[in-house]
Amino acid sequence: MVLFRRLLGEVLRARRLEQGRTLRQLCADARVSLGYMSEIERGQKEASSELLGSICAALDVPLSEILSEVSDAVALEEAAVALRLRPVELRPVPARSRQPDGGVVASAA
Amino acid sequence: MVLFRRLLGEVLRARRLEQGRTLRQLCADARVSLGYMSEIERGQKEASSELLGSICAALDVPLSEILSEVSDAVALEEAAVALRLRPVELRPVPARSRQPDGGVVASAA
Repeated sequence: MVLFRRLLGEVLRARRLEQGRTLRQLCADARVSLGYMSEIERGQKEASSELLGSICAALDVPLSEILSEVSDAVALEEAAVALRLRPVELRPVPARSRQPDGGVVASAA
Repeated sequence: MVLFRRLLGEVLRARRLEQGRTLRQLCADARVSLGYMSEIERGQKEASSELLGSICAALDVPLSEILSEVSDAVALEEAAVALRLRPVELRPVPARSRQPDGGVVASAA
């Protein structure tokens, strides 16, 4: 079963890393404990709607945008499950593997 | 603050009603108690990711589709909040007010 909290955690973590912020910095802004936030990012704890709102505010990203990204990630996993492939993981793409045309290559060989 | 669980509840309820199913029928399929499901639909309780998966399976709707609809509903509320308007409510559109071109009129006067 594709779990909402796991994909939500990955999307939130990716957003935080994009902003170059540490878990500690985000937690101070969102008024959530470091341990709890870490578990949310790893998909081990559910975030209440109020906390999710606080995290989005601390990230300065609309909740609708986060949910849209989670929806896309869930759709990819649903497709992967349908094809009996391994779950898709959201990973930041290293800058060096980006191509001038915006494309991405798996290796530079 | 726009609360995820409230919009999620509205989307789930709208989907169930579209299918002409009672709360009791859905609860039997999703293996959730009537009281709990009722609270989820009214946005009073958070649904765990596992339960959300079960409800989507019982509704035969991909989780990604539900999340996409919730994202759209949240975006509408965010816009309404930004404009200091009253919260938008998701209401089923009565069949008699649908127009042949797919449009909707507020009254038939």
